[in-house]
Amino acid sequence: MRINGRKANERRPLTLTANINKYAEGSVYIEVGDTKVICTATVEEKVPMFMKGQGKGWVTAEYSMLPRATHSRNQRESARGKQSGRTMEIQRLIGRALRSVVDLHALGERSITIDCDVLQADGGTRTTSITGAFVALALAVNKIVQKHSLPVFPITDYLASISVGIVGEETLLDLNYEEDSKAKVDMNVVMTGQGQFVEVQGTGEENPFSREELNKMLELAEQGIHEMIEIQREALGPIASKIGSKQSEAGV
Amino acid sequence: MRINGRKANERRPLTLTANINKYAEGSVYIEVGDTKVICTATVEEKVPMFMKGQGKGWVTAEYSMLPRATHSRNQRESARGKQSGRTMEIQRLIGRALRSVVDLHALGERSITIDCDVLQADGGTRTTSITGAFVALALAVNKIVQKHSLPVFPITDYLASISVGIVGEETLLDLNYEEDSKAKVDMNVVMTGQGQFVEVQGTGEENPFSREELNKMLELAEQGIHEMIEIQREALGPIASKIGSKQSEAGV
Amino acid sequence: MRINGRKANERRPLTLTANINKYAEGSVYIEVGDTKVICTATVEEKVPMFMKGQGKGWVTAEYSMLPRATHSRNQRESARGKQSGRTMEIQRLIGRALRSVVDLHALGERSITIDCDVLQADGGTRTTSITGAFVALALAVNKIVQKHSLPVFPITDYLASISVGIVGEETLLDLNYEEDSKAKVDMNVVMTGQGQFVEVQGTGEENPFSREELNKMLELAEQGIHEMIEIQREALGPIASKIGSKQSEAGV
Amino acid sequence: MRINGRKANERRPLTLTANINKYAEGSVYIEVGDTKVICTATVEEKVPMFMKGQGKGWVTAEYSMLPRATHSRNQRESARGKQSGRTMEIQRLIGRALRSVVDLHALGERSITIDCDVLQADGGTRTTSITGAFVALALAVNKIVQKHSLPVFPITDYLASISVGIVGEETLLDLNYEEDSKAKVDMNVVMTGQGQFVEVQGTGEENPFSREELNKMLELAEQGIHEMIEIQREALGPIASKIGSKQSEAGV
Amino acid sequence: MRINGRKANERRPLTLTANINKYAEGSVYIEVGDTKVICTATVEEKVPMFMKGQGKGWVTAEYSMLPRATHSRNQRESARGKQSGRTMEIQRLIGRALRSVVDLHALGERSITIDCDVLQADGGTRTTSITGAFVALALAVNKIVQKHSLPVFPITDYLASISVGIVGEETLLDLNYEEDSKAKVDMNVVMTGQGQFVEVQGTGEENPFSREELNKMLELAEQGIHEMIEIQREALGPIASKIGSKQSEAGV
Amino acid sequence: MRINGRKANERRPLTLTANINKYAEGSVYIEVGDTKVICTATVEEKVPMFMKGQGKGWVTAEYSMLPRATHSRNQRESARGKQSGRTMEIQRLIGRALRSVVDLHALGERSITIDCDVLQADGGTRTTSITGAFVALALAVNKIVQKHSLPVFPITDYLASISVGIVGEETLLDLNYEEDSKAKVDMNVVMTGQGQFVEVQGTGEENPFSREELNKMLELAEQGIHEMIEIQREALGPIASKIGSKQSEAGV
Repeated sequence: MRINGRKANERRPLTLTANINKYAEGSVYIEVGDTKVICTATVEEKVPMFMKGQGKGWVTAEYSMLPRATHSRNQRESARGKQSGRTMEIQRLIGRALRSVVDLHALGERSITIDCDVLQADGGTRTTSITGAFVALALAVNKIVQKHSLPVFPITDYLASISVGIVGEETLLDLNYEEDSKAKVDMNVVMTGQGQFVEVQGTGEENPFSREELNKMLELAEQGIHEMIEIQREALGPIASKIGSKQSEAGV
Repeated sequence: MRINGRKANERRPLTLTANINKYAEGSVYIEVGDTKVICTATVEEKVPMFMKGQGKGWVTAEYSMLPRATHSRNQRESARGKQSGRTMEIQRLIGRALRSVVDLHALGERSITIDCDVLQADGGTRTTSITGAFVALALAVNKIVQKHSLPVFPITDYLASISVGIVGEETLLDLNYEEDSKAKVDMNVVMTGQGQFVEVQGTGEENPFSREELNKMLELAEQGIHEMIEIQREALGPIASKIGSKQSEAGV
Repeated sequence: MRINGRKANERRPLTLTANINKYAEGSVYIEVGDTKVICTATVEEKVPMFMKGQGKGWVTAEYSMLPRATHSRNQRESARGKQSGRTMEIQRLIGRALRSVVDLHALGERSITIDCDVLQADGGTRTTSITGAFVALALAVNKIVQKHSLPVFPITDYLASISVGIVGEETLLDLNYEEDSKAKVDMNVVMTGQGQFVEVQGTGEENPFSREELNKMLELAEQGIHEMIEIQREALGPIASKIGSKQSEAGV
Repeated sequence: MRINGRKANERRPLTLTANINKYAEGSVYIEVGDTKVICTATVEEKVPMFMKGQGKGWVTAEYSMLPRATHSRNQRESARGKQSGRTMEIQRLIGRALRSVVDLHALGERSITIDCDVLQADGGTRTTSITGAFVALALAVNKIVQKHSLPVFPITDYLASISVGIVGEETLLDLNYEEDSKAKVDMNVVMTGQGQFVEVQGTGEENPFSREELNKMLELAEQGIHEMIEIQREALGPIASKIGSKQSEAGV
Repeated sequence: MRINGRKANERRPLTLTANINKYAEGSVYIEVGDTKVICTATVEEKVPMFMKGQGKGWVTAEYSMLPRATHSRNQRESARGKQSGRTMEIQRLIGRALRSVVDLHALGERSITIDCDVLQADGGTRTTSITGAFVALALAVNKIVQKHSLPVFPITDYLASISVGIVGEETLLDLNYEEDSKAKVDMNVVMTGQGQFVEVQGTGEENPFSREELNKMLELAEQGIHEMIEIQREALGPIASKIGSKQSEAGV
Repeated sequence: MRINGRKANERRPLTLTANINKYAEGSVYIEVGDTKVICTATVEEKVPMFMKGQGKGWVTAEYSMLPRATHSRNQRESARGKQSGRTMEIQRLIGRALRSVVDLHALGERSITIDCDVLQADGGTRTTSITGAFVALALAVNKIVQKHSLPVFPITDYLASISVGIVGEETLLDLNYEEDSKAKVDMNVVMTGQGQFVEVQGTGEENPFSREELNKMLELAEQGIHEMIEIQREALGPIASKIGSKQSEAGV
C-alpha cells in the first residue's frame, strides 16, 4: 500500500484551472497532488536570431521553483547569478516536448515562451510542468489563430507527461517526493494523444534495470497519460477539438 | 472619478489567505486589487556571518516577479545572471521595514527569510509585499515562540504599507498600474499599528512637490494603513493579540 | 554638543571645485566635511534604446566608492562581479533626482551620464553626490547649449540634498558617519531652488517616528539645502543665472 | 547504404589509448570515428560538503568541447561566463551514469572527477565521453585500491554508451553528426556489462515514436554496447578482471 | 647538469604536427618536451565592431588549459564563471605577438581566431602556444590566400617564442615546470625570423637582475628561437617560402 | 621637439602627496604630467588561504580607472560584471613588482593591499601606479613596524617605474597618451634603487625592434627611474632612510 493509500497504478488527482493571469496570452494553474505549478504562455511577433527568415515559429520554455517550494528553502537562482544544471535540463526538456506537437510552419514567424513556475513541489514538477504547459500553449495558440486568422490550427496532437519508477520491488505510477527519494529507478515519459512517445528518460543511478522493468514502467505511464489527456481536453473546452484537426475555423 | 469607480481615498479590496504553503513556517497569499503576491517565511536556526555571536536574530526579505506578472514578459533575473537595481531596492526596503517591528533579541540567534513572489502586478507590488510579508512573518514567529517556548513574543507592533500619489490635481490612495504611470508624485508609506512611520519614500521625478502636498498624501496613507491592519488582525486570528503584547503564553 | 562642536542645525563645511577633469564635459570635486566625491558628467550624442525616437534626452548616474573610502577596505564591486544593492539604490536615486530639474525635451536626443566616485566617506555620500552631481551636470549642459546653440537652457531649477536624523532625543542636520551609525531615524531630502521636494526618504529601522518628528526633520533639511544652493550658485559663476531662466543666450 | 558505407547496425571504429596524461590518476584518449575525446580522472582525498561524514565517496564529471571541435567555432564558455544548458545536462548524465557502477562505500571518503574534453566532434560526444570516462575511472580506482589497499574493488560492473536513431525509415546504430542532424528520433543508451540499462534517453522532437521503434532501437544499442565493452576490457589489461569481482588483490 | 641531462643552452625537443583537426582552417599539435598544446585557427569573413570599415583584418587568440593539464586539477574557468587574470594576460600576449607579423591590410576585412588549448603543461605553455599558433595561423592564411586569390601573402615574417631564466647561478634556456618554479628570474621572448624582438617580458619577482644578466638571457633566447623557426619551416612545407615574400602565387 | 616642449630624455613633472586618506594605513596622490592616481595601502592581520601557515606576509594590488579618466567614458567594470584583461594584467604587474622589494618573512603573516585608482589618464598609468604604490606601501609598512615593533624594516629597496618607446625614429622617455598611441615600440621598465631590473616589458606590435633599440630604451628608463626615486625619498621624509637598511628602530 502506497503513501496516501494509492494503488501502484493510480495517479494523484489532477486539476487544471485555465486563464488565471490577466496579461498572459495563455495561462493555467495545475495541481497534481501537492505539486502546484503556474504556467503562462507569452506570444511575441518575432523569433530568435537563429530562426529568422525561415518562415517558422518557435516555442521555448523556462522553469523555476519559488525558493520555498521545497522542504527547506533553496537559494534564488537570480541571487546565485546563474541557473542550475537541473533547471536548464528541465526547461530544455519542456521546450523540446512542446515543439514536438507544434507545426512551426503553421505557427508563422512568431514565438511562444512558456513559463513554468513551481509554487509547491512534491515530486513530478517537470512532468506536471509539461502537462500544464501544453494547456497554456493551446490557449495562446488559439488566440493567435483567431487574431491572425491562421488557416491551420498549429497544434498537431495532445501532449502530457508523467513519472513512473521502481520502489522496492514495485513499479509505481506518478511518484510523490517521498517515493521518488526511495526509488531505485526513475523514469519520465512524455506522450502524445495518439499514444506515441516524445520523450523517454529512464535513470537507474542506484540500480540498473532490465528490459522487462522498462516495459512495465512504460505501460503504467501510457495509461496515466491517457487519463491526463482527457482532463486537458475538458479544461480546454471548445478549443479541445481543434487540436490535431489540421484546420482552424478560419481555414474552413 | 477613478478607474474602477474608486474614490480618491478608497483602497482596492485586500484579501489575505494564510498557510497556503505546506512547507513554509509562515505563508500567505495576498491580493490587493489585481496585484497578487505569495509571501513565505522560512526559519533557520542560524544567523548570517555578520550577526554571529550577538545573541540577536535576523529578518531579511527577497522579492521577485514571475516573468509574466506584467503586461509584457520580463526576462528572468536568473537568466540575466543578476538581480535588477529595482529588485534589490525593493527587497532591502521590505527587510528593513519588517525588522522595525521585530525585537531581534527576543527572537534569539535565528533568522527568518521572507520571500515575496509577485504572481501578477497591477501597481503597489512593494507595498502589498510588505503588508503580506508581515502576516507570514507573524505566523512563522508564532511557530518559533511555541516550539522554543520563548518568553516574549518578538513582534512589537503591526506593520502595513500603501502607496499614495498625485495624479493630475488629485491626491489618490493606493494607485493601480495605470494611475501610477500617470502620477506626478509617487509615495510609499510604511506604518505601524501605533500610527508611527517606518518608511516614507516620496518621489517627484516629474514634478517636485510642496509640504502641503506631502502632508495630504501622508494623511491618506495613514487612513489606508489603519484599515489594512484591521484585515491583518482578522487573518491572524488568535495570534493577533500577541503582537505588541510583549508576552507570549510561555511568558505568562 | 555634537562631534566637532557643531550645533544641531549646523551643516558641515561644503566646498565645490569645478572643472577638475580635463576630459569630462562637466566635473566637480566636492567636500562635505570629510566626505569627498568626484563628479564627472559625460555627454553622448545618443540616447539609450528605450528612449530612442522620442525627441528627448536622458540623464543617468553611476555611483561607486573607492575600496578604501571607508574605515575598513571594501572589496571592489568589479572583483565581486556585481554591484551591491546599496550601490544600485543610490545611483537610481541620484539619476532620478537630477532628471527632476532637467527639461529633457529641451536637452534634445543626447544623454548625460554623471559618475559620482567617492574618494573618502564620512556619512552623507549619497546626498553629497547629488549636490556635486548637479554642478557637474550644469557645467556639461552649458557646454551643450553653447555647442549646439540650444534656444532654452534645459535646467529648470537648482537641486541639492542633505541628510537629517534623530540621534538620542535630538534632531540633527547633516550627520557624519559616527552620528549616522547611532541615529534612530535617518532621512535624506532632495530639494529644488524653489524649495519643493524632489525626494523624501525617511527610515526608522530602529525606531518608528511621528509626524511631528518628520516635520522637524524636513525643516532642518530645508534650511540646509537653501544654504547649499547658494554655494552651488557661486561655484557655477556666470552659468548660475541661466538655471531656471528658461532661456539661453542663443535663445535670446 | 550509410555514409562511409556502414551497415545500419554497424558501429564506427572505436580506439582507446590509456595513460595519455602524465599527471592524472587515470586517463584515456578515445576515438569513435571522427569523434575524439580526452578523459582524465582526478582523485582527491575529500568529498564535497553535502557528502561529508557519510563514509562514502563521490564520482562526478565535467564535459567541455574545444571551441573548434565543431564545423564552426563555438564561443568558449569561460568567455561567455557560464556553461550552457547542453553542457550541464551532459555532464550530469556522465556523472550519474558512472556512479551507477561504483560502490561508493567501498571507495571511501574520496572523490573522483572525470573531465571529458572533446577535441573533435562528429556526433555521439556524450556517449563517447561515457565510454572513455569509464576506462579513465577504472584506471584511477585501481590506483586508489593499490595505494590504500582497499579490500573490495569498488567498480561493480562495466559501463559503455552508444547512440541510436531513426533516419528516414531506418533504425541506425551510432549516428555521426550528419546522420544525427537528419534523425527523426534520437536515443542515447547507457548499459552495464550485465546488459542492464543505466540510462535510456529517447527524444522524438521531430517525430514521436512507437513502442516497436523504441524496442528496435534498444536492441541495436544493446549489441553495440556489448561489443564496446570488449574493447574496454582489452584497454584495461590486467585491471579488466577486477571489475565486478567484488574483491581486490588486497582483499584476497 | 639540468634535469633530463640538458645543457644550459639546450632546448627541449620540439615536434609540430599540422592539420590535426578536420574542421579548422589551420591546426597544429605541438609538443615541447612534456608541454602539449593544440592550436586551431578559425577564419571568419567579418571583423569585430571596433575594426569595421577600415579595410583591415584582425587576428586574436584565446588560451586555456584542460583542468588536468597540471599536477593537481584546476577548476574549469567556465565553472568559475570567469577567466583568470593569468589566462587573459597570456591570450592578450599571443594575439599581440601574432599580429606583429601579419599585414592586416593585405589580409582584408576578415578575422582569424587562434585557440591554444593546453593538454599537458610542463612549463613554457605561453611560449609553446605562440610557436604553435604561428603555424596554425600560416596554414589558415594560406587557405584564405588561395580561396580569395589575395595578391600578397599577408604574413610578413616567421615568429616563435621561448622562455629563459636564471636558476641558481645559471642562465638556462627553455625552462620546464620544475626549473621554472625555482627560477629567480623568468623571461619570455618572442622573436621574428629576421631576429628582431616582438616581445621581451622579464620578471625578477624573487631577485632583481642586472643588464648583463638580461643580455645573457636574450642571447640564449635568440639562439633557441632561431632553431625553432627552422622546425616551423619544415612543418609548413610548400607554404614556408611564402612567408615574408610579400607575394602570393596569385600575386605573381 | 616633443609635445609640451619636452626633450627626448625628459620626464614629465612628478608630484607625490602623502597621507591623503584618513582611513588608509598608507596613501599617496601621485601626478605624472596629467596622469593622476590615488594609491592607498590597506593592512590586514591575515593572509590569503594559499599563504597560510608559512610565516610570511603577502602584498597584492588592485587597479582601476574612473569611468571618465579617459577621453571618452569607459563602462564601469562593476557594471559589466567583470574586470578586463587589461586591468588584470596591470594589477598583477603592480603586485609582482612591489613584492620584489618586500621581505615577506620580515613582514610576518599579514597582508597589504594596494589600491591604485586612476582619476585621470594621460599615458603611463601602470608605471605611475607602481611609483605611487611604492610610497603608499612604505608608509603602511612603517605603521606596521611601529605598531608591532618589527626588528627588521621589511622593505629591501626603492622601486619606481617609467615607460619608454620609439616614436618615428626617436626613442622617448615617459610617453604621454598622444605619443603612446603613435609609438611603434612601447616598453615599461620597473627598477630598484640599486639599479636592478624588476620588470622589463617591451612590445613591438607595430614594429619588431633590435637589440640596439632595446638597449637605448633601457638606458633612458634607467636615468628616469633614478630621478623618480629621489622624489620618492623626499616624499617619505624620515622613513626614507629605513628602506633597505635591514633594520628598524625597534631592531636597533
